[in-house]
Amino acid sequence: MAGSAALFPGNAFSKPAPLFGQDEIGLSKWELETPSLCLDLDIMESNLKKAHENLKGTSIGVRPHTKTHKCPALAKMQMDAGAVGVCTAKLSESQVMLENGISEVLMTGVNISTAKIRKAMQLRKTHSGFIQAVDNKQNVRDLQEAAKEAGIIADVVVDLDVIRRSGVPTGLPALELAQLIDQSPNLKFMGILAYDGGAQHIKGYQKRLERTIQTFEPVSETHKMMVQSGLNVEIFSGAGTGTYNMMADVPGFTDVQVGSYLFMDTQYMAIGSERNESLYDDFDPSLTVLASVINSNHPNRLITDAGAKSLTINKPSGMVIGEPGFSYNAGSDEYGTVTYETANKTYKTGDLLEVIVPHCDPAVNLYDRIYGIRKGKVESILPVMARGHSR
Amino acid sequence: MAGSAALFPGNAFSKPAPLFGQDEIGLSKWELETPSLCLDLDIMESNLKKAHENLKGTSIGVRPHTKTHKCPALAKMQMDAGAVGVCTAKLSESQVMLENGISEVLMTGVNISTAKIRKAMQLRKTHSGFIQAVDNKQNVRDLQEAAKEAGIIADVVVDLDVIRRSGVPTGLPALELAQLIDQSPNLKFMGILAYDGGAQHIKGYQKRLERTIQTFEPVSETHKMMVQSGLNVEIFSGAGTGTYNMMADVPGFTDVQVGSYLFMDTQYMAIGSERNESLYDDFDPSLTVLASVINSNHPNRLITDAGAKSLTINKPSGMVIGEPGFSYNAGSDEYGTVTYETANKTYKTGDLLEVIVPHCDPAVNLYDRIYGIRKGKVESILPVMARGHSR
Repeated sequence: MAGSAALFPGNAFSKPAPLFGQDEIGLSKWELETPSLCLDLDIMESNLKKAHENLKGTSIGVRPHTKTHKCPALAKMQMDAGAVGVCTAKLSESQVMLENGISEVLMTGVNISTAKIRKAMQLRKTHSGFIQAVDNKQNVRDLQEAAKEAGIIADVVVDLDVIRRSGVPTGLPALELAQLIDQSPNLKFMGILAYDGGAQHIKGYQKRLERTIQTFEPVSETHKMMVQSGLNVEIFSGAGTGTYNMMADVPGFTDVQVGSYLFMDTQYMAIGSERNESLYDDFDPSLTVLASVINSNHPNRLITDAGAKSLTINKPSGMVIGEPGFSYNAGSDEYGTVTYETANKTYKTGDLLEVIVPHCDPAVNLYDRIYGIRKGKVESILPVMARGHSR
Repeated sequence: MAGSAALFPGNAFSKPAPLFGQDEIGLSKWELETPSLCLDLDIMESNLKKAHENLKGTSIGVRPHTKTHKCPALAKMQMDAGAVGVCTAKLSESQVMLENGISEVLMTGVNISTAKIRKAMQLRKTHSGFIQAVDNKQNVRDLQEAAKEAGIIADVVVDLDVIRRSGVPTGLPALELAQLIDQSPNLKFMGILAYDGGAQHIKGYQKRLERTIQTFEPVSETHKMMVQSGLNVEIFSGAGTGTYNMMADVPGFTDVQVGSYLFMDTQYMAIGSERNESLYDDFDPSLTVLASVINSNHPNRLITDAGAKSLTINKPSGMVIGEPGFSYNAGSDEYGTVTYETANKTYKTGDLLEVIVPHCDPAVNLYDRIYGIRKGKVESILPVMARGHSR
């Protein structure tokens, strides 16, 4: 990291004050000022292991998506646990990972502007494990030119269109795009991506499975066409936390791009698992926001200091640990409002609540640090180094 | 700023790379990498003036809420335009403003934890223009103790409960709280806050006015009780961008806490003004997110690189300038999806869109910098120094 140039200076604007003051390492979680983003390390490490254990016996690897945590320290743990590499969504995120010791980075989004393409190829020049996604022919020609200019042969994957969002249409257009890459002297075709973002949060294991099988029909057909054309399909990547265990029967499929599995959130908890239709319990919630009650004047109502700027307004809303009867409304920017009919204890101003986040990715993106908590104490502080890196 | 201690070190974690690379000052707005948060300086300055002009002839001052922009550079412009001071929501925000040359700061939220109360009183010791809100008796006693410990007499305002969120109930409870402050040797009672967060976005000027008049009945009654008791009610602050011009008839009212007036957003545009029921046109939209089209494979559909992490998922959603027929869905974290039946031009991958943000406060909180744009060129870069300062 030290001394490296920011891809775009805006992403690295310095925060106002230097880093000193109270030392938070060793504090009880309940001594932290609020709102604070806390990660139970035991639960997180258990989730990390489970992803690999649950895929044991298959040929499927794990390529975690770091857009979820934006934190090189967590990416390192994922690599140490056996990941084949990590994914990133944006170029500035890729830089943060590569320049913080994560050597295998697959950028699942495309770079379109000339400046981004050039900088991507400069990154690839320094970091041989950087793989770039493309989804259109002009972009392949632009990448070829930039790779030639940088004097490299760059690894490229084709992103397939499965939910009318990113990607090239499956079938012939995808095959032709792969062949164009294969024929580009400074590009190396490495395989395909097929992320079904629409399937991940479908409620009910069986429904999710049916949708996944349906989605993957044209994807598998495309994969087959590419293999039969003699293309180098080393990578066949896709799936997420909701479908990671549904890919074993897809021929040639290599790895799942799980992200939320590490943290969980109320959105994923609601989708149900194979063994439990009402709660997705393959992984356990490890990420919470610690909030303070700052007003308790009204009966059956608590006001907290964690609103939309601390939790996002995603639904289902945050869940207060230990209080299943609490409804948490984060619709105010600065305030959370808890309403309830029954509570397990009496609350007063100054009390703390621990809230499971609604949707982990955008929640983490609000914080500069995650407190690593072990047995109730702050063990580590994990900087969210790619926070706000949306370019 | 330089050399000062962070209130809580977590707020000041350093970004990964030093600030060099391409110089963006002087670039055309259309040359910026995306997503970028852009501020049209001419429009913003016009909004800044209008707030004061529209209140001319009244005795009402402007005390802008900086939770909207979290940017000391903009707070300075507001002070230079004649603001009586600024507001902040959180302690860490207050620190950023005070330590960046903004001397008059009223913190509208309460500090409850011992550490925050002590640090607030330390801030007050260095910065005599810092005023702290309270809404309960224990908090007054805690503040008194901390002010005594710091060797100061601290200015305090009472926050009144108008929307069952923060605040002490109006009437006798508020009066007693003010009297307790007045009797505390190290505290000075300065007045009251009454922010009606529920009124700001009511559609229709007349409805908004009726609600505001209704809300202010018990507030005005409380104000009267305090004045009659001989209390020092120097400050009687409230209202926001939606109701700033409705306060002239409230006896003793001193200043409005406008925030969004500087930027505007689709939420405020939808509420209607006194002269225009369908568009709130007292102020004009100055803040936009610049996004790139990164996929244009499907007819009547454009995919952009600005999703929830760049725009938030607030409703009504972002509005593409020049394309009233566009519907912008920022529901994906990394991608925006535009759908339309008619467009004013033909779009292709690589084209740029300029999007008015749905709700300015949480949108700004996603960015480290705002690009100040004048006549299409980058004139300044405004660091969002209190971004993420939710403590």
